[in-house]
Amino acid sequence: MLTGEQYKATLDDGRATYFEGERVKDLPGHPVLGQVVQNVADGYDWLASQAVDGVNPAAGVPRTPEELREKVELVHTAGMMAHVNYTSIMTLATAAGRLATTAPQYVERLDEVVRTAQARDIRMTQCITDAKGDRSLPPTRQDDPDAYVRVVDRGPDGVVIRGAKLHITAASFGHELMTIPTKAMKPGEEAYAIAAVIPVNAPGVKIINTSYAPRHPDVRHFPISGQEHFPEGFVIFDDVFVPTERVLLDGETEQAAVFAHSLGLWERLGGLSSMADGADVLVGLAQLVAEANGLARIGHVKEKISEMVIHATVVRACLEAALVHAETGALGAVFPSELYTNAGKYTGATAYNLMVRHLHDIAGAAVVTAPTLADLENPEVGSLARKYMSTRADVDGEYRTRLFHAIRDLTADSFGGWRQVTNVQAGGGLYAQRIVTRKHYDMDAAKHAALTVAGLVEGARGPSRGV
Amino acid sequence: MLTGEQYKATLDDGRATYFEGERVKDLPGHPVLGQVVQNVADGYDWLASQAVDGVNPAAGVPRTPEELREKVELVHTAGMMAHVNYTSIMTLATAAGRLATTAPQYVERLDEVVRTAQARDIRMTQCITDAKGDRSLPPTRQDDPDAYVRVVDRGPDGVVIRGAKLHITAASFGHELMTIPTKAMKPGEEAYAIAAVIPVNAPGVKIINTSYAPRHPDVRHFPISGQEHFPEGFVIFDDVFVPTERVLLDGETEQAAVFAHSLGLWERLGGLSSMADGADVLVGLAQLVAEANGLARIGHVKEKISEMVIHATVVRACLEAALVHAETGALGAVFPSELYTNAGKYTGATAYNLMVRHLHDIAGAAVVTAPTLADLENPEVGSLARKYMSTRADVDGEYRTRLFHAIRDLTADSFGGWRQVTNVQAGGGLYAQRIVTRKHYDMDAAKHAALTVAGLVEGARGPSRGV
Amino acid sequence: MLTGEQYKATLDDGRATYFEGERVKDLPGHPVLGQVVQNVADGYDWLASQAVDGVNPAAGVPRTPEELREKVELVHTAGMMAHVNYTSIMTLATAAGRLATTAPQYVERLDEVVRTAQARDIRMTQCITDAKGDRSLPPTRQDDPDAYVRVVDRGPDGVVIRGAKLHITAASFGHELMTIPTKAMKPGEEAYAIAAVIPVNAPGVKIINTSYAPRHPDVRHFPISGQEHFPEGFVIFDDVFVPTERVLLDGETEQAAVFAHSLGLWERLGGLSSMADGADVLVGLAQLVAEANGLARIGHVKEKISEMVIHATVVRACLEAALVHAETGALGAVFPSELYTNAGKYTGATAYNLMVRHLHDIAGAAVVTAPTLADLENPEVGSLARKYMSTRADVDGEYRTRLFHAIRDLTADSFGGWRQVTNVQAGGGLYAQRIVTRKHYDMDAAKHAALTVAGLVEGARGPSRGV
Amino acid sequence: MLTGEQYKATLDDGRATYFEGERVKDLPGHPVLGQVVQNVADGYDWLASQAVDGVNPAAGVPRTPEELREKVELVHTAGMMAHVNYTSIMTLATAAGRLATTAPQYVERLDEVVRTAQARDIRMTQCITDAKGDRSLPPTRQDDPDAYVRVVDRGPDGVVIRGAKLHITAASFGHELMTIPTKAMKPGEEAYAIAAVIPVNAPGVKIINTSYAPRHPDVRHFPISGQEHFPEGFVIFDDVFVPTERVLLDGETEQAAVFAHSLGLWERLGGLSSMADGADVLVGLAQLVAEANGLARIGHVKEKISEMVIHATVVRACLEAALVHAETGALGAVFPSELYTNAGKYTGATAYNLMVRHLHDIAGAAVVTAPTLADLENPEVGSLARKYMSTRADVDGEYRTRLFHAIRDLTADSFGGWRQVTNVQAGGGLYAQRIVTRKHYDMDAAKHAALTVAGLVEGARGPSRGV
Repeated sequence: MLTGEQYKATLDDGRATYFEGERVKDLPGHPVLGQVVQNVADGYDWLASQAVDGVNPAAGVPRTPEELREKVELVHTAGMMAHVNYTSIMTLATAAGRLATTAPQYVERLDEVVRTAQARDIRMTQCITDAKGDRSLPPTRQDDPDAYVRVVDRGPDGVVIRGAKLHITAASFGHELMTIPTKAMKPGEEAYAIAAVIPVNAPGVKIINTSYAPRHPDVRHFPISGQEHFPEGFVIFDDVFVPTERVLLDGETEQAAVFAHSLGLWERLGGLSSMADGADVLVGLAQLVAEANGLARIGHVKEKISEMVIHATVVRACLEAALVHAETGALGAVFPSELYTNAGKYTGATAYNLMVRHLHDIAGAAVVTAPTLADLENPEVGSLARKYMSTRADVDGEYRTRLFHAIRDLTADSFGGWRQVTNVQAGGGLYAQRIVTRKHYDMDAAKHAALTVAGLVEGARGPSRGV
Repeated sequence: MLTGEQYKATLDDGRATYFEGERVKDLPGHPVLGQVVQNVADGYDWLASQAVDGVNPAAGVPRTPEELREKVELVHTAGMMAHVNYTSIMTLATAAGRLATTAPQYVERLDEVVRTAQARDIRMTQCITDAKGDRSLPPTRQDDPDAYVRVVDRGPDGVVIRGAKLHITAASFGHELMTIPTKAMKPGEEAYAIAAVIPVNAPGVKIINTSYAPRHPDVRHFPISGQEHFPEGFVIFDDVFVPTERVLLDGETEQAAVFAHSLGLWERLGGLSSMADGADVLVGLAQLVAEANGLARIGHVKEKISEMVIHATVVRACLEAALVHAETGALGAVFPSELYTNAGKYTGATAYNLMVRHLHDIAGAAVVTAPTLADLENPEVGSLARKYMSTRADVDGEYRTRLFHAIRDLTADSFGGWRQVTNVQAGGGLYAQRIVTRKHYDMDAAKHAALTVAGLVEGARGPSRGV
Repeated sequence: MLTGEQYKATLDDGRATYFEGERVKDLPGHPVLGQVVQNVADGYDWLASQAVDGVNPAAGVPRTPEELREKVELVHTAGMMAHVNYTSIMTLATAAGRLATTAPQYVERLDEVVRTAQARDIRMTQCITDAKGDRSLPPTRQDDPDAYVRVVDRGPDGVVIRGAKLHITAASFGHELMTIPTKAMKPGEEAYAIAAVIPVNAPGVKIINTSYAPRHPDVRHFPISGQEHFPEGFVIFDDVFVPTERVLLDGETEQAAVFAHSLGLWERLGGLSSMADGADVLVGLAQLVAEANGLARIGHVKEKISEMVIHATVVRACLEAALVHAETGALGAVFPSELYTNAGKYTGATAYNLMVRHLHDIAGAAVVTAPTLADLENPEVGSLARKYMSTRADVDGEYRTRLFHAIRDLTADSFGGWRQVTNVQAGGGLYAQRIVTRKHYDMDAAKHAALTVAGLVEGARGPSRGV
Repeated sequence: MLTGEQYKATLDDGRATYFEGERVKDLPGHPVLGQVVQNVADGYDWLASQAVDGVNPAAGVPRTPEELREKVELVHTAGMMAHVNYTSIMTLATAAGRLATTAPQYVERLDEVVRTAQARDIRMTQCITDAKGDRSLPPTRQDDPDAYVRVVDRGPDGVVIRGAKLHITAASFGHELMTIPTKAMKPGEEAYAIAAVIPVNAPGVKIINTSYAPRHPDVRHFPISGQEHFPEGFVIFDDVFVPTERVLLDGETEQAAVFAHSLGLWERLGGLSSMADGADVLVGLAQLVAEANGLARIGHVKEKISEMVIHATVVRACLEAALVHAETGALGAVFPSELYTNAGKYTGATAYNLMVRHLHDIAGAAVVTAPTLADLENPEVGSLARKYMSTRADVDGEYRTRLFHAIRDLTADSFGGWRQVTNVQAGGGLYAQRIVTRKHYDMDAAKHAALTVAGLVEGARGPSRGV
């Protein structure tokens, strides 16, 4: 396993990465992105500290619902980069099982890619969403044929690809880009049925970073995003050569969706787990700020918090049900129930904005007007600011100020905006989650139950028809 | 175990029961209530048919989550009366355990009541909700001191009680009234801390029945409520003597809430289970009518059905989580998790009216304007009505008509109205369910998670703070 | 103007009308439908009592927003039949204006129809919704070509039509059926582009009535629907001959939608006005029952009522805005703003089920379990029932019982179900109302405002960009 | 009227204002706050350009609903500072009328303050919200008696006040602080019943500024907040002397709420007007980004935009109804209807987060991951970024990028967070708006309508009871 310092050294590999109009020569030393490097390095060191007999605890595939739960928790704690990497590795392992009969020629390559990645202890990100051009048209009918990543040339040793992948979390901070089709492909779209693993520093790879990182000189009033933030990469493949042994799908249109579906499984589980935890955090903040404001016993405040509690409980119930009804795949890996996972994600995502409104409603305008810690330290006004930010002898002005900073950072500033958007968009948008939930629901059973109740089938279940 | 016919005979015991202004002399022969008697009799016969070695399969206490699930399903299938009886018996068994140390003098009586009831194979209903008078005042400050059931006299052999219990499902069709305080009582309210088991035909007991039963000469267009309906009893205790051995609490105010809480546990589990099934039925009806209308592939219709699917799935997820996190009581009986049960009930209840709106939106106005089956049989217009109720060669006009009748009966007529109201009111109203959910939520953990995220506690969980 | 008694006599004209499988020979004497006849007759007498100089106050076209408001109020008060008739007459008057240049051959006939109807003081109903078959297919591709009303034969003096019109309020109780295409038609659908005015007693017209009327022997516990109920007609045209002078459109497909759009205007205005009044009634009931229950000062009850108040106010605001922004048509008639009318109807319809849930939540289960008035009169239990239905010395048990009956009748019984369904379905369903609102919204202005805010157009409005 | 440059000069008056821990010596030259000064100066110059005969068009009181509408539009366009000042001036004018009989001793002073302010063409801000301490306790029971602003000393020429006022928009950029009680006061709270107009540079006044201003070196990707932002002031009165002639209330507890109510009227009108415009902007952005993404004809996207359209229309309907039902005050000034204004504000505020979710759902993740304009100008990746941000030949990559920046700035970044919080908090939070709406609703009329429908009053409105 690599140390954090070893990880930092690997980034000096000539990668072409950009930030706000400038190419970044020194990632660890960059004023904004340097902190990301440090966060990833800390994740390396922490995982190493959790190793038993030198074995990376994040490696390996879960075989039981309990292992699944533990693994998800572990990589979540190890930080965004470990989580992203784990998702990529599990996606490839899952896809290998699914291609075993339909496209067996790729299975060996997939295994080799996974083996090598784990042996080198590198980080692999997921590149899925294409630029997509006009959403109402397929790849071949776009004004620009590069709207979806495609093969533009091929030779005896490999292919040349062109296109872009958007919203790629931490793309500039890993070592390899797991590049897969964003959707199912049809006959005639062979050039777009391309999957590959590509080094970040491959010639032609160019990554524009965008970030919600706070840009203030003093980030203490950003207690969350000031500590940890992960840029999104706008990954451009400007005619990048991929050697054959790193190509994981090449023209088999009917298999194009296998990778996206495999990724979806693992991404959604992490998403639902985060959502359940995140909902509890919102409840906790609401209760803490209600107590600090002297509102914890006011009826309408209690009712709002109760609604938040019920929301958090319902999202967690979906996670529990997803684990209880976990299914075992072809290769023995355990997956959460698609039905409950998707219903839970949808519920968490659709109610999120309302839960945030409740939190803001309870907390008050100081969420966006609380002084900075520097103001509290100013000799002329600091003690006065503390005095007026305090609400009772037992509620310290600085404590309450910091609580407002946390709420603002999490829900009403750059990071909060990023969360609100990605909350809706992760996993394909609300529309996609509705579709997927419905697909996995037992509609025939529901129809039969309805017909029974309506007296339109013989043999009801007993004296009662079940309503 | 009694047969259905034996059950019918037991009703001829002099009970004072009323319907729309008239005393009912002959329950089995009553034009509206007679069908209820038949439904209960059928439930007796069905349960007997499920017996193994003559043992009532509905008797006994569940010891594992799986037994719990099976028992709930069994009594649900056996019909409302069996379900009501099971809930009463389990309430008494649960209360016995809880009073073992605080009021041990009642334990023997409770056991005896349960033993006798099971030996006689009788049906016991739950009498909990008082008339309550002005809801903002306690029992002792009411204009009418009888607003809550109370002891008005006592002698060497027993007590005399007065008051009323409202909304008592099937009260006139069982044998005993399990009468318990509707809420916690305080010092000074000793007369109201009274629990007892009272025969339906005890002198002074008078029950007014109300019913959503269809009153049309031909009930075929009420495919559900025309088959099965259970009146609510307005139970009046007009100075009823209760012998000491049937008194289960008498003045111990601090124990007054034990019965209500015990009942709540078992009532909510049945409620959540019914709600999960009921949500599936609504989905099934929506899908069937969308197919019959030729709308099943229309975008906005699919989206509404998907929302209904997600709702049904979320309610069921709560049931699953409630069973997975089931707890074992003092006497070994297994109870569902209060947290998930209440969150599920609340979610099911609050969204119900919206789900019904979706169903009506998809189905169309024919829900309330479809002809009767008699119209379809009329020689002058029957074939024309069938013709125009058909939508395609493969959708029979009568089938579609009956589908509309089922939707109307279930959601847009007397029974539908009863369901809509009781859906909200069962288990104490939405407000109570919010309170109970919150009470069982781990608020300390949520506050700790929030403080961790805010950087206000030392020792975060690893490199990531968990957002 | 006709008297009520004269009206009754007109019904004895051989019309073929059916109820629950039987042909109705004597409408005024029918046990269920007789009351409808009486209600219509009362409306005739009331309108006559409002006449000035013998002129029907319901006749004539509004020329100002204030006249519009008064007219709507007048016909609403005069009862459903007067309202239906007014809507038909205004629809024909509006259509005449719109066809003046595109199909002038019908203008004279339209005028004649209106003149005659007003001179005879008859009642005309609107027949718009066809059977429609498979909703995903046009008329010509249905398995049954009669799924939409069409011309099946024609001769020198007129046409023969076949088909059915569904959900036709009060169809059996008027004198003429204003039959119009349910939607726009396309080339090839000429046979379906047929509009006509047809006597109810024309040979081949057959009407099946369905009704939410209470069927109990004592309807006192149905204080609303027991007083007034209007059946829906399932109107069948079983090859009905229509003389040329009563044909108002015949094959002009591009004009087929003119009638539906004209009807829509007048129907929606009445609908929105009723909705605003209806929302106030729900608020009033909620407040009355909260007071009767002693809940009027409880926080969560007040909050629910406040939400109902805001809903009622917002719906009324849409009505006010619709009148303020009324437009004047070609012939000088004043119409409400389509934009505000539709937005208001949609808002009223989508929130209705939630408002009903609030009312049920506040009122309690007695909505569906309150005793009947006959119970209150029973010598054995009547005084006891009154006693326990009372909540305070100043809240009479019978008053409170009747309040529950009103709530049940209006929202949780047959009539309530009819209201819930028609609330969503009137005016074409929620989907249609969304489409229409959007169509009338000034999207270009909104886009320009957005571009201005985004800094993407020159010349902002001043120092501030308007956010 | 002052010029922008003259305004700038007035700020050099020794005021004690702070930003992120530092005292600001030179407001016009400050890197963050300097832009605010320029925005205010531009507003001065623009208003001067609108003057007729040298008369400030923002002065004067509206006498008709149309004047009201024009005035609101004018000060809205003139920028935040003009709007704030207008609101203060109108508040004082309104209060003068209301105190004319109850506290006439202040009327002359109020008039003088208004006259002087208009003559000097200064800007006056509203200081209302106190620190408030524990929200469940009144001023006199707080741990810190200064939790609400109070008089701590008094002499022959004036009083000395202490306390803080929070969330005071633009406090550091005006000339006077209109300081008024935040709520009604009771006997015993005389020291807290203090209103006064205080110069920003009075000794003891200290203002901490907080700001959502973007802090990036290149603010082009903040097209709104990079152009205009207004800090909130945390205004501390550290024992500030106020001469008697500037004291506008001093101990008259029963009049304490007059100022807050007067302010509320004018603040809410501006708020509702902004909300109506803001809702249109959200619709416009949703439509523009749907078109740019090729989604404008996709069913579920159209439905979401239709919902946004209906929301915008309903909010505007409330504004229209508020103006139509405007009332005229004692001194002839026209005020909007409280009922419709509050219902509209509540509706706009409660649905805002959902509307934002719809916008994010339609726009996609590029809201938070679009490259900066500097990225688009970079010679190595700029043309590639434009290429992939374009979706069709007719959708320019830069245009689409800037659209995403506008959406992010407005809804998903610092400014967006500020909007989300203040949207809920302005005018006292959602709870307060519910209360106020209910207070102005005609509940007696609603109860009478309900009783009529229920058959519980004599003399219904005609044949129909109005449901």
